[in-house]
Amino acid sequence: MGAAAIPLGVGFSIAQTGHTEPRLDRAIQRFQAQLSRKTGVPLVPLPENPTRVRLTIHTDHASEPVQRLGEDESYTLQVTDAGVTLSAPTPLGAMHGLQTLLQLVTISAPGFVVPEANIQDSPRFPWRGLMIDSSRHFIPLKVIERNLDGMEHVKLNVFHWHLSDNQGFRAESKRFPQLQEHGSDGLFYTQDEIRALIAYARDRGIRVVPEFDVPGHSTAWFVGYPELASGPGPYQIERRWGIFDPAVDPTSENSYRFLDVLFGEMAKLFPDQFFHVGGDEVNGKQWDANPKIQQYMREHGIKDNAALQAYFNKRLQPIVAKHGKTMIGWDEVLDPSLPKDITIQSWRGAESLAEAAKGGYRGLLSSGWYLDLGWSAARHYAVDPMGESSTSLTGEEQRRILGGEACMWMEYADDETVDSRIWPRNAAIAERLWSPREVRDTASMYRRLGLVSHDLEFLGLTHNSYYEPMLQRIAGPATPEQLTALRTLADVVEPVKNYDREKARTAEPTRFTPLTRIVDTVHLESDAGRLFSDAVDAYLGSSCRDANLAARLRTQLSAWSANDATFQTLAPQSSLAQEAAATSKDLSAIGQVGLEALSYLEKGQAAPPEFKQQTEVVQRATEPKGQLLLVPAPAVSRLVDAAASGGNCTAK
Amino acid sequence: MGAAAIPLGVGFSIAQTGHTEPRLDRAIQRFQAQLSRKTGVPLVPLPENPTRVRLTIHTDHASEPVQRLGEDESYTLQVTDAGVTLSAPTPLGAMHGLQTLLQLVTISAPGFVVPEANIQDSPRFPWRGLMIDSSRHFIPLKVIERNLDGMEHVKLNVFHWHLSDNQGFRAESKRFPQLQEHGSDGLFYTQDEIRALIAYARDRGIRVVPEFDVPGHSTAWFVGYPELASGPGPYQIERRWGIFDPAVDPTSENSYRFLDVLFGEMAKLFPDQFFHVGGDEVNGKQWDANPKIQQYMREHGIKDNAALQAYFNKRLQPIVAKHGKTMIGWDEVLDPSLPKDITIQSWRGAESLAEAAKGGYRGLLSSGWYLDLGWSAARHYAVDPMGESSTSLTGEEQRRILGGEACMWMEYADDETVDSRIWPRNAAIAERLWSPREVRDTASMYRRLGLVSHDLEFLGLTHNSYYEPMLQRIAGPATPEQLTALRTLADVVEPVKNYDREKARTAEPTRFTPLTRIVDTVHLESDAGRLFSDAVDAYLGSSCRDANLAARLRTQLSAWSANDATFQTLAPQSSLAQEAAATSKDLSAIGQVGLEALSYLEKGQAAPPEFKQQTEVVQRATEPKGQLLLVPAPAVSRLVDAAASGGNCTAK
Repeated sequence: MGAAAIPLGVGFSIAQTGHTEPRLDRAIQRFQAQLSRKTGVPLVPLPENPTRVRLTIHTDHASEPVQRLGEDESYTLQVTDAGVTLSAPTPLGAMHGLQTLLQLVTISAPGFVVPEANIQDSPRFPWRGLMIDSSRHFIPLKVIERNLDGMEHVKLNVFHWHLSDNQGFRAESKRFPQLQEHGSDGLFYTQDEIRALIAYARDRGIRVVPEFDVPGHSTAWFVGYPELASGPGPYQIERRWGIFDPAVDPTSENSYRFLDVLFGEMAKLFPDQFFHVGGDEVNGKQWDANPKIQQYMREHGIKDNAALQAYFNKRLQPIVAKHGKTMIGWDEVLDPSLPKDITIQSWRGAESLAEAAKGGYRGLLSSGWYLDLGWSAARHYAVDPMGESSTSLTGEEQRRILGGEACMWMEYADDETVDSRIWPRNAAIAERLWSPREVRDTASMYRRLGLVSHDLEFLGLTHNSYYEPMLQRIAGPATPEQLTALRTLADVVEPVKNYDREKARTAEPTRFTPLTRIVDTVHLESDAGRLFSDAVDAYLGSSCRDANLAARLRTQLSAWSANDATFQTLAPQSSLAQEAAATSKDLSAIGQVGLEALSYLEKGQAAPPEFKQQTEVVQRATEPKGQLLLVPAPAVSRLVDAAASGGNCTAK
Repeated sequence: MGAAAIPLGVGFSIAQTGHTEPRLDRAIQRFQAQLSRKTGVPLVPLPENPTRVRLTIHTDHASEPVQRLGEDESYTLQVTDAGVTLSAPTPLGAMHGLQTLLQLVTISAPGFVVPEANIQDSPRFPWRGLMIDSSRHFIPLKVIERNLDGMEHVKLNVFHWHLSDNQGFRAESKRFPQLQEHGSDGLFYTQDEIRALIAYARDRGIRVVPEFDVPGHSTAWFVGYPELASGPGPYQIERRWGIFDPAVDPTSENSYRFLDVLFGEMAKLFPDQFFHVGGDEVNGKQWDANPKIQQYMREHGIKDNAALQAYFNKRLQPIVAKHGKTMIGWDEVLDPSLPKDITIQSWRGAESLAEAAKGGYRGLLSSGWYLDLGWSAARHYAVDPMGESSTSLTGEEQRRILGGEACMWMEYADDETVDSRIWPRNAAIAERLWSPREVRDTASMYRRLGLVSHDLEFLGLTHNSYYEPMLQRIAGPATPEQLTALRTLADVVEPVKNYDREKARTAEPTRFTPLTRIVDTVHLESDAGRLFSDAVDAYLGSSCRDANLAARLRTQLSAWSANDATFQTLAPQSSLAQEAAATSKDLSAIGQVGLEALSYLEKGQAAPPEFKQQTEVVQRATEPKGQLLLVPAPAVSRLVDAAASGGNCTAK
């Protein structure tokens, strides 16, 4: 804590100079409320409270009426014993600075303070986004709003709203009302709600880019408008997950007339410069099966489905442009025949992003940032839009790499769990997009992530608070000991990664499948598992004589070792707990093996040769069961290896 | 689980017979949403889901347009393998039955089920209330709404809204707008908001009784209308807690004219039959100091301030009656000279309630049910409106005891903590008011309370989820181990009881004092402390040879014993943690002493005579520090006594 730390009290007040506007006033009020929430100090300026200005905010000028890609978002923030000074060219920078200030505030021996600071800050990339899929599971607006609050806090500036897919068309169209009437089960956003959400986002320095995915991922459109499809109807809203056959008929003029009207309507509703047309994962089966389409391809020399999709996009691009927008699409829309004005969102890899940049296209990275795949924050943090494949790019080409977006696909999340699937890991991606490339230390990132995670909870996100009620739902009328046993297990378990949940499934899930299982309940990244693994590495890496570390490991391993006895009393009472019965056995087994390994290591003895067989126990525990990964198993495996190899733990 | 348990799936659907009304439709939709939330099963009737009616709701007829005291709230609920049948004379009973059904649903080996049941249910008392003080800390409407959801769940039917006090006048008056404009810091409910809240409550079978407290507790009125007061102004909104001097001038005709107009306006706004005028805690100092009032008393033969207040109430009652309402007030309004139409709310004891009933007055019990005093659920549960003092009452007199109200006074709670100060203990009071007098088993009550507490969280109450963020605020940038040490301590600590927080304070608290201390954070009743105490009693009561119980106690005591070492590393980093440093030392001390006692008991040895000295250690730990009670100390004291007295633990 620097000597200049400013105490935070009721009298902490704020003044503005330079440009002011209602949005900035609201941002300051919001900041005050957030600061009050974080600290519990009621910051209510009242006549009887003698106040002294402790924060001065200077803003040079207004930002664009519609927030534009690449606007100045920089700010400077100085905290001295004289007070806090925040300066920014535009309200965007001022808002970013306020959130930095909120993060800086910390408890200390004398109470809450703003520590001394001198920060000059601006983003590395101009496009820092989060995509949320509102189609597969509908997400109420208040959930989106709190995620926008979270985005503001970590300085993300693009909300990419995936509004249509096979499982639902979620935006109200007044021109084609059967889109939402037949394609949404009544779960859609009205145009008034959308306008309000865009205003909410703008208030937080966030652009809203809508996505209407064509020609695939569009079954929900065809329930109301079967004539758009390439195959005969009728259609039903899709309830399953996966890639499906229905696709817009790219050979029908009616399709383009429809899209022209719809996109025209939506282009007016969404003021942002960019308009996302999807374009991913067309399997072409309906095209193959439709003689009229096949004939059209022959007549027009369209040699395959990729070419047909390129043709579709070439027809689409002028429509989007006519309504004043820049078209953006997933990897698959990239075709050299398209004008350079389109932007590519790469879900296939940084290579295709570099390739696009070389071809003259602007692009965003999303590959490596699919939040629903369950990667660790460290793994997301290591991804960089300027990956190895971009080293050969010229400066101009590099500037075409606009940034990236974290993506939250919603097959296995709903409004109860979605926050926990996005946060806090998304904050690591946001930091990658904002901070200099050189800021890469993982341990330091995790320290900040823990603090940001707490701040985010005070903003209303539920990525921590969702957990206990879900455990209680699984436990039902359990004893406190049984609930503790469930929590102890759940704390060190993660869902299987990537698309392994699909592979390991026993029944086909649908939109109506309850997301209440242990795999839905556990955090995507286990803090307890990570900390144990770190402790094992510290123990093995330093000296096995470190009694404190050994004691910590022993406490943890003992608790795991004892846990299954209680868990197995719960499992028969709850179908949901039962699913983790095998993993619970594994946890106790690795707890026991870990304790044995620790004993050898503490004694400095080589374990007897037969101890090596315990490797198999641990190996079996690393195999997922019930779609669950037992996170500490690899670390226990390292303990066993060290013990078996003669207890020479420093030589690992 | 009975054989007839009905599985709960997407196809669970509902039909109505008999009387229907929009309120009932909304109640059913709400029930479906609540059931979905509790179970995670999406109960969405869609064409493609073959549904079969599993719940039939029959309602005989409408309830009164304005819910009336004593309306039929009964229902019958049958669950057989053929389905669920809910029947009720009125929508009130139907709504109660739905909440019972929601409580019945439980997880089991095959999944979520409705267990077999055959319930005929009706309330013991017609007035089952919760009072919330919106004056001392303003409570946002959404917080009140979720508390109404909780009230519905436990079948409480009166929300008593304490809308004015020294610290704020919270209801919009259009006739006297300076009440809220000068008396609320801008924190008040508009009439539209109040109407919406009344409708929200009616939808849940809950009456809304407003309270405008006169002649005392009224400083906030006088900021805008100083001429109402008995002393010279000007006045400021009171920021402190306590009993203050300002009181309405009962000798001025202007006071009655003002109250006539205001109460007329509020009587129209609040449709309920009852209108609460407060009447408590007038210290009389302004009356004593005002020569005009003294003269008036002499001229009119009013012998003392009690008589003056009786005179005031006698003038007030016809005003309230003129606007079509029945006057209700706190104990102090009881005076034999008042008409029998008034109703007494007893905060002083069941004796005054019986006394009122003998005098012909109807009454409610609140004594023993002040939620803010921190009593255990067991202690609240043991309170009965038909206490000992009512045994001498005739049947008619007994019927004048209408029920009771839990009261939540808001000196030491705000919107962040209020749910935790009300729930789950309020559910025990609700059960006392609903269920037969003979249902009194405390252990059984705590089992139900645990389940209801989980259900209430699914309804949106935050009495559990508030806890972790508040611990994190205290811990700040702590390590996971430090946070765990804080949680371990906080789990077994309670705030001092009754008004001891006032007695132990070091600085005068005000409305602006942050409520972020450990005393604000810990639960008012420590589950961990209660369970430990129960385990000690079980251990001492059965046989000290019970190795399982001994192991459980040992685990717990060991954790406490070790806890302070980590906690003391946190304390210097956080002013908020520092406050519990002494209590943390105590916890480790009693953990250590408890372990020693357990050793003697396990060995069956009498402890050496000097061990008895450890009693002092434990005794010191029972003394509150930092306004905190260390809950397990008395149980450890019992362990020490048993060990000291020869280890004969069965003879305790």
